[in-house]
Amino acid sequence: MDPTRRIERALRAQIDAATEKDAPPRLAAALHHAVFPGGARIRPRLCLAVAAACGDPLPDLTDAAAVAVELVHCASLVHDDLPCFDDAHLRRGLPSVHRVFGEPLAVLAGDALIVMAFETLARAGAAAPDRLGRLIEVVARGLSVPHGIIAGQAWESEPRIPVVAYRRAKTAALFEAAAVAGALAAGHDGAAFRLFGQRVGEAYQVADDILDVTGDPSALGKPVGRDAPLGRPNAANDLGVHGSRHLLEQLLGAALDSVPPCSRKSELDTWVRETASKLLQAGRRAPCAQDAPSH
Amino acid sequence: MDPTRRIERALRAQIDAATEKDAPPRLAAALHHAVFPGGARIRPRLCLAVAAACGDPLPDLTDAAAVAVELVHCASLVHDDLPCFDDAHLRRGLPSVHRVFGEPLAVLAGDALIVMAFETLARAGAAAPDRLGRLIEVVARGLSVPHGIIAGQAWESEPRIPVVAYRRAKTAALFEAAAVAGALAAGHDGAAFRLFGQRVGEAYQVADDILDVTGDPSALGKPVGRDAPLGRPNAANDLGVHGSRHLLEQLLGAALDSVPPCSRKSELDTWVRETASKLLQAGRRAPCAQDAPSH
Repeated sequence: MDPTRRIERALRAQIDAATEKDAPPRLAAALHHAVFPGGARIRPRLCLAVAAACGDPLPDLTDAAAVAVELVHCASLVHDDLPCFDDAHLRRGLPSVHRVFGEPLAVLAGDALIVMAFETLARAGAAAPDRLGRLIEVVARGLSVPHGIIAGQAWESEPRIPVVAYRRAKTAALFEAAAVAGALAAGHDGAAFRLFGQRVGEAYQVADDILDVTGDPSALGKPVGRDAPLGRPNAANDLGVHGSRHLLEQLLGAALDSVPPCSRKSELDTWVRETASKLLQAGRRAPCAQDAPSH
Repeated sequence: MDPTRRIERALRAQIDAATEKDAPPRLAAALHHAVFPGGARIRPRLCLAVAAACGDPLPDLTDAAAVAVELVHCASLVHDDLPCFDDAHLRRGLPSVHRVFGEPLAVLAGDALIVMAFETLARAGAAAPDRLGRLIEVVARGLSVPHGIIAGQAWESEPRIPVVAYRRAKTAALFEAAAVAGALAAGHDGAAFRLFGQRVGEAYQVADDILDVTGDPSALGKPVGRDAPLGRPNAANDLGVHGSRHLLEQLLGAALDSVPPCSRKSELDTWVRETASKLLQAGRRAPCAQDAPSH
């Protein structure tokens, strides 16, 4: 099945199951709004691509891993958009969750999405109980303290931001989790995919930094120019647009070099090349929403 | 080991492991503040009491279940205290997390505590992989949509609150999870403990409602009289203090009647009687913090 359809179908099944009956109606609506329509879904795509490269023998478990990674990503967007963080009014071209449903339901929707990520894994893990613990640990690590995206966001509340740890936590950690979870779901050695996932994530972050400086908010469906006033590290602000494009090319090359041995390595190489091409295009011009890094 | 020491030691180990190295220092401090010093820790106590009644053959797994339940409870307190919900300045006798660390770190600390709950279970689950999936599902169910404490809080954002569903979700769901998780961790039939857990939770909620009307904020370490102005259902407001005390007695009797067969049933009966006595005392007089339901 086409990865886009596969991801949307799996996400839809999970959100519908939680909200179709008995749920508070406005929270149910907020959960749908937080997850659909999606952005580029690059994290679950990475998860599926790695699983496919490892043979993908348990596609339902792979789907659960991809869904878990995307749900915690959606949760982080809902919370990061809150007035106490970015106060973003727009997300994926629509009003952000708290603008539509208010802050209380935005906080609760983010919380629920985090829980649902682990619930999804737990249900699908019945097919391979020996892999479940590691899968949960990997997704939790990508999200939590000290190295995950929650820690990444928290570095912004410190008087001094350690740039390397911040970048790794804020974005690369969840890409790493996506890649490792894809491998684990396929019964492969997850650790072999850590560096690869990190590098894809680092490249994505640089492309996103460039778009924060050069992008068109109407094409991206979210505000731009936010990093400088919020005092957040941004490669394009630090290195200039030219320098950051060069860094992006280097990181994409490094990602390609770090694809570990697996039964369908050439397919994963192709996925990296195609993703690289989209990120580089996004880094070169005012992008159309289809190509661009979109959270 | 004494349950109090056992719970505090297990919680401390989990929080220290996440925060001792590399974590953003203010987030680390917020996590400690959110969990220590604790309240009555009644949910993890319930979890340990049920596991003990079932023989408790894997105490580390039981500890993880108790920690998971308490961490998600602490997360819910941190988020419920936020200005967009209760705007509570005081919790467990100290300034609430957002009053000390600001709203961004309060949101992130709550998020991190939810993730850490599942991380704790995943790590300990290596000792019994066949039980891990069910344990995660049970804790998630107590927390999530449609029936858990997140849904319970979300009912407060609806124009009309269905009182039975609200009460069950807002408090009883996590007590149910604590009881079922304790049984599962001990290799017992978790479902047999659902009704028992619910009834303990319903009794606790009524005792808490009475304290919201009659309690002393300095003894309780949190504000009182919040339910009426916030439009929240409260048994003592609905039935009067006398009527709600009667309901509390009924619920405690029902909890005792619903203890299912287990190898050390008499110990669990004793636990229920002792807990009932504390809750009834709390419902009868301005309580001291030791006896009172304390979140």
